[in-house]
Amino acid sequence: MVSCRPMSQSAKSMNDLFLRACRGETVERPPVWMMRQAGRYMAEYRALRAQHDFLTLCKTPELAAEVTLQPVRALGVDAAILFADILLPLEAMGAELRFQKGDGPVFPNPVRNRDDLERLQHPDVEGTLGYVFDAAREVRRRLAELPRPVPLIGFGGTPWTLAAYLVEGGISKHHAHLLAWSYGDPEGMLRLLDRLADVSIEYLRGQVEAGAQAIQLFDTWGGLLDAERWRRLAMPSVVRILESLPDVPRIFYIRDAAHLLPILAELPAEVLSVDWRMPLDAVRAIIDPLQPTGPKKALQGNLDPGALLGPIDEIRRRTRALLQAGSGGPHIANLGHGIFPMTPVENARAFVETVQEG
Amino acid sequence: MVSCRPMSQSAKSMNDLFLRACRGETVERPPVWMMRQAGRYMAEYRALRAQHDFLTLCKTPELAAEVTLQPVRALGVDAAILFADILLPLEAMGAELRFQKGDGPVFPNPVRNRDDLERLQHPDVEGTLGYVFDAAREVRRRLAELPRPVPLIGFGGTPWTLAAYLVEGGISKHHAHLLAWSYGDPEGMLRLLDRLADVSIEYLRGQVEAGAQAIQLFDTWGGLLDAERWRRLAMPSVVRILESLPDVPRIFYIRDAAHLLPILAELPAEVLSVDWRMPLDAVRAIIDPLQPTGPKKALQGNLDPGALLGPIDEIRRRTRALLQAGSGGPHIANLGHGIFPMTPVENARAFVETVQEG
Repeated sequence: MVSCRPMSQSAKSMNDLFLRACRGETVERPPVWMMRQAGRYMAEYRALRAQHDFLTLCKTPELAAEVTLQPVRALGVDAAILFADILLPLEAMGAELRFQKGDGPVFPNPVRNRDDLERLQHPDVEGTLGYVFDAAREVRRRLAELPRPVPLIGFGGTPWTLAAYLVEGGISKHHAHLLAWSYGDPEGMLRLLDRLADVSIEYLRGQVEAGAQAIQLFDTWGGLLDAERWRRLAMPSVVRILESLPDVPRIFYIRDAAHLLPILAELPAEVLSVDWRMPLDAVRAIIDPLQPTGPKKALQGNLDPGALLGPIDEIRRRTRALLQAGSGGPHIANLGHGIFPMTPVENARAFVETVQEG
Repeated sequence: MVSCRPMSQSAKSMNDLFLRACRGETVERPPVWMMRQAGRYMAEYRALRAQHDFLTLCKTPELAAEVTLQPVRALGVDAAILFADILLPLEAMGAELRFQKGDGPVFPNPVRNRDDLERLQHPDVEGTLGYVFDAAREVRRRLAELPRPVPLIGFGGTPWTLAAYLVEGGISKHHAHLLAWSYGDPEGMLRLLDRLADVSIEYLRGQVEAGAQAIQLFDTWGGLLDAERWRRLAMPSVVRILESLPDVPRIFYIRDAAHLLPILAELPAEVLSVDWRMPLDAVRAIIDPLQPTGPKKALQGNLDPGALLGPIDEIRRRTRALLQAGSGGPHIANLGHGIFPMTPVENARAFVETVQEG
């Protein structure tokens, strides 16, 4: 005889559209959230940021949780994404990390060859990155207090994308050091990527244990590589990370990768998140025939974040066109890249509302 | 009866591989040159640059000619490209232009809406940009003195790419103003692009009259646009320019445009120049079936400029692979984007030599 437990209040009213869409289930309407939805375009965020520097926001669980929840409260998005930075695990590995006003992240001691690898350690992940896990727990606690809790997404950068910053020492125009190493000593670079993957696996598992209900991997710089090099350099560590995750939906985001779609179809991820350059129906036409067995990938994306700088009517029109382009399969509405800091918040709201009106 | 004129010495010994490949003729081996081949990676260039600022080099015909010829002499490339900057016509239109050390080009008074358009004038092209034409004539004079003269390529930016700088006021991370205008008032932006095209047509014709034997249009930022927006915003002025050129080979370069290839097949250009992300045989497989009538486009490119930072053996191996990938039709060997300033000159030489050894 099956015991019939009463459903808890929070489970009963949870908004699980996002998780169901990730799993490829048919849903009433596409869920919607925005990459970088916790950020500078929101006055609430700027107010907190005026009091605390960026790393302090990341490293103080109460502040990180507060920032994570700002867009959930203000815009009613269907998922929260943990406020953190993809570069934090590199700092935990011993790479000094600074955020300099105007310059973005800076690694004063970049890692550029096999010898430099010696300087990287495999950290006690709980000891060095526990603040991220604490933030995740705090977010889940606060989400549970909402009338309709939404799921929490954890995330990390792919090893190639982490390397794009660690090897260059920050944001780069040419990625000359990264490319020089990758062409000159691909085996050495694979060692670096492998070590970044080792730490990423523990880090992402820790996020899931602390309450993240899905994981998104960001391969912001994967599109620098042609297919042959992406397969050889970037893919192995990505596959290892994706296969090591506990049983939560896995989202793979990559920018600038129309040329990589046939390979991306092979990835062990439930969701592929693409930039704005190619309509979702065209993406599906390429990847679906290459996934002959098992459920097809859900697609996430892909409104041009620049479109949110246009007039509200045009945002609504383009959002409806996005929903149409995504309607051939499971779709999580999102932008094609992070929301720009100068986006008017009412424009972001128009995007979210248009999706939610269906 | 046909009169038989003796061939002039210079015509007899001219290296016309490049022009013949542009026209789709079968050639003994692919010609080779490099985007930004006259530039900072060469000691000869840095020595001149130490004495003159960038705009002075552009605006002094003897200096521009000298810089243009440096890579012809030092590396033996099969074509010269005029030393100039795509932004010079904007300055001629009345937009103040500065090159600031480290920051690249800066327009202190960007053009961001229809009202700002009033500030742009249609210049006397000969009067304002005559120094470029003088440089072209000087280059042709000096080339004629070489044992085996090579053809001279003139060039310009596409209106969309020029706008990417003029609207933003320089190099931009998000292109927020450009995107906001293009989404908010596409008709207004098309007016800007049209006016840029008007000037570009005169400017490029002037280059041809002064001796440029082919014209390359650079659409460095066209890849920001999806296909629908590229067709609506960027394409009309590009087609108008290409169709207005005198009878010289037309090369269209675009970066980051794997998603645009089906449209690019339609362009009235003899040569399509692509970045390094997609192998040339894959590019041909997409565009050739879409050009059912007339000669197929020649392809130009597309070694990753980052590959020139690797070891010489690897450069040679990858260059041979490039020649193989390009062998299915007319091919002009080049990089997928401008050569990086930190490239060792011997690496650039290895690329050129490997192509020329066949």
